[in-house]
Amino acid sequence: MRIEVVAVGTELLLGQIVDTNSAWLGGQLAAAGIDSHFHQAVGDNLGRIVLALRTALARSDGVIVCGGLGPTHDDITREAVAAVMNVELVRDESQVERIRAMFETRGRSMPENNLRQAEVPLGATLIPQVLGTAPGLVCPLGNKVLYVLPGVPYEMTEMFTRAVLPDLVDRAASQGSPAVIASRVIRTWGMSESGLAEALAPRVAAHETEAGHAGSSVTMAFLASGMEGIKVRVTAKAPTLQAAGDLLDAEEAEVRALVGHAVFGVDEETMESVVGDLLVRMGLGLGVAESLTGGLVASRLVGVPGASRWLRGSVVAYDATVKQKLLAVPPGPVVTAEAARAMALGARLALGADVGLSLTGVAGPDPDEGQPPGTVFVGLAMPGASAVPGEAGGVSSGGVSSGGVDLGVEVLELRLPGDRERVRQYAATSALDLLRRRLQARAGGG
Amino acid sequence: MRIEVVAVGTELLLGQIVDTNSAWLGGQLAAAGIDSHFHQAVGDNLGRIVLALRTALARSDGVIVCGGLGPTHDDITREAVAAVMNVELVRDESQVERIRAMFETRGRSMPENNLRQAEVPLGATLIPQVLGTAPGLVCPLGNKVLYVLPGVPYEMTEMFTRAVLPDLVDRAASQGSPAVIASRVIRTWGMSESGLAEALAPRVAAHETEAGHAGSSVTMAFLASGMEGIKVRVTAKAPTLQAAGDLLDAEEAEVRALVGHAVFGVDEETMESVVGDLLVRMGLGLGVAESLTGGLVASRLVGVPGASRWLRGSVVAYDATVKQKLLAVPPGPVVTAEAARAMALGARLALGADVGLSLTGVAGPDPDEGQPPGTVFVGLAMPGASAVPGEAGGVSSGGVSSGGVDLGVEVLELRLPGDRERVRQYAATSALDLLRRRLQARAGGG
Repeated sequence: MRIEVVAVGTELLLGQIVDTNSAWLGGQLAAAGIDSHFHQAVGDNLGRIVLALRTALARSDGVIVCGGLGPTHDDITREAVAAVMNVELVRDESQVERIRAMFETRGRSMPENNLRQAEVPLGATLIPQVLGTAPGLVCPLGNKVLYVLPGVPYEMTEMFTRAVLPDLVDRAASQGSPAVIASRVIRTWGMSESGLAEALAPRVAAHETEAGHAGSSVTMAFLASGMEGIKVRVTAKAPTLQAAGDLLDAEEAEVRALVGHAVFGVDEETMESVVGDLLVRMGLGLGVAESLTGGLVASRLVGVPGASRWLRGSVVAYDATVKQKLLAVPPGPVVTAEAARAMALGARLALGADVGLSLTGVAGPDPDEGQPPGTVFVGLAMPGASAVPGEAGGVSSGGVSSGGVDLGVEVLELRLPGDRERVRQYAATSALDLLRRRLQARAGGG
Repeated sequence: MRIEVVAVGTELLLGQIVDTNSAWLGGQLAAAGIDSHFHQAVGDNLGRIVLALRTALARSDGVIVCGGLGPTHDDITREAVAAVMNVELVRDESQVERIRAMFETRGRSMPENNLRQAEVPLGATLIPQVLGTAPGLVCPLGNKVLYVLPGVPYEMTEMFTRAVLPDLVDRAASQGSPAVIASRVIRTWGMSESGLAEALAPRVAAHETEAGHAGSSVTMAFLASGMEGIKVRVTAKAPTLQAAGDLLDAEEAEVRALVGHAVFGVDEETMESVVGDLLVRMGLGLGVAESLTGGLVASRLVGVPGASRWLRGSVVAYDATVKQKLLAVPPGPVVTAEAARAMALGARLALGADVGLSLTGVAGPDPDEGQPPGTVFVGLAMPGASAVPGEAGGVSSGGVSSGGVDLGVEVLELRLPGDRERVRQYAATSALDLLRRRLQARAGGG
């Protein structure tokens, strides 16, 4: 069963708001095993809403249209739906009473405009509103169906969950599409998108060969996601949720066997949550010293619930004299491996932490201390630490060389591409990834 | 001239990412006076991308398609475009060399997959990439045009601005579209959306009365934007860019006359860039001490180009002992006005700054030290500072009371609504807004 989502609102086309409703509905439909092959957005114009709905009905089994149910003159989805159904709009008196009562309980009289929200295309069924004034609609069109929902996200999600999803699942079952779609996001850092695709090419080939066996299939897609790394999305289609989950488990194991060193988490896990979990498990406290990232590493770590158990704090030493005073960095150049080393030790000491992580470098756009933008030194001081030889080369998506080891402090040098913001973001994730690898190696988990 | 935007990517349909590209392009097109009546999203499927492009070409004068230009097997926009044009894909050897050279400068060899990014539909013109590996395309289709752009937002926006927008403006001019649309975003903090709408209701009424006079019109929209505050977007339509700009200037003056105390900037200005400009002008250095915001304030400040001229650094004192050791906060409770005061003074001293700004509080979800989530104390230590009486009430969108003044340190107490992330973000902006107001009052500019 294929459902198309149509979002109505000129503000969407003008970019004044981003259409989060369609993304949310897409996720809900996929989770229910219902395909959604197209989304559309269209402005508050009668002819164009009609055209968008007819286009959607021609290429799908059903349509969910969101928005344009308000009380004002530019809310014309009801009229467009009536035109597509080729019927009249009739006023539903029980709705008029309901809306009038809603205004009365708030001590206000109902504006005449709101009467429009009680109009229903002949033959359509009302979906009662429980949070606002605009009811939804279920409109039969031959063997297809059109659902009309309000555009306010919290009203839309409530109405979809309560009334539309159960109806859709019933229809899908009666049409005999038993398949369930489930997906899993495998998160990686340290490989380019094309390098990852090349390493996983045998899996893609295997899926193409196996496609359609016993009604099951697996597909794989790659998604470059900036400082969140490259995501590998595995989607499984199977007769039951259990079977789809088994396919995902098997596929994740295959992916880890091929590129496991680059995998840092799955689904909702983030680089910072994975680091936090490891620190909790190992009973270690972390202190950070940041220069070019200016608090970005710390603020990502603080976003992890329960961070107070393992995060001591961070010294954002943007000014060179602050580096000297708070972190005991010797006077002299600060875009160096030596400065990163001193900062990591300084963070451990100043913040009373077991582990010290530091970043210094040049975000750009101009060079600094003769170093080009994108030059970053990451320092990591761990109790009894020693670098794992031959592994540093995979840590960053830019060029990488590993620095020396001294007194349990490791330094990683990065050359990151991109503008100021990108350099800062990639530096932050690269530093956290170094910490993750060392903690996992120590914990015996990676 | 009507341009349809088509976003390609199964991840959009599945709701794994929200399509921000289409919204951004919609805003750019509107600003250039180019209509956009429909947007579509479609998955990584050849037949369906072809169908979406044909649908778009049938109802528009041109199409911008984004995404599906990566190096992997699921990136098939090039193939779909060639099918719509009914031509072959041919390899462009100069592109092959360019991509190969890009990998070489990073010390890596080019995976075979990347050769696909050098393929061009016969008759299309390449748009060179300057940030990544996938070039864009301009594809003529009779008297219509199809632009192909990468889906990575920062590559897409750069390429659109550099190559597509000028081409579109030329085409629109040759088709004789005379009206120019310009818009300005007026950024506010400290008023609710409905409060702002109520205060600006006379302007909205005036626009409705004046609409259509001499081919000119002004419209106003409100957009709640989280930690960036509430944006008032004013759009003017006029025969020339000069006339549209004059309308915007006049409207901004009207808005400032009504709600000027809440306006902190326009267009690209941010709360942090405004604070940075004021600090530079006044020759002051800033030091920050953060607890619940965990580096968020510092990392926003570091994002301002030239921040090193006025930002000394930040102490992220997440752990109570760090507050005592680095900031000389007395032992005892830390979610208090006294702790905020000590932290502001400590930041000034520890970081060698003229101005000390501090934040301590409870992000949630659980209460801390008997204080409910959303309780935040902001401390501000300025040389010779004294609180401006009767002004604190407008600083936050939550409830606000101003604390005592002592030794040049002011403390503001906030009760912020929302979850952990929202409390942190609103606390950061509220603290920067307090600093902005005090600096502007001192500079005589606000």
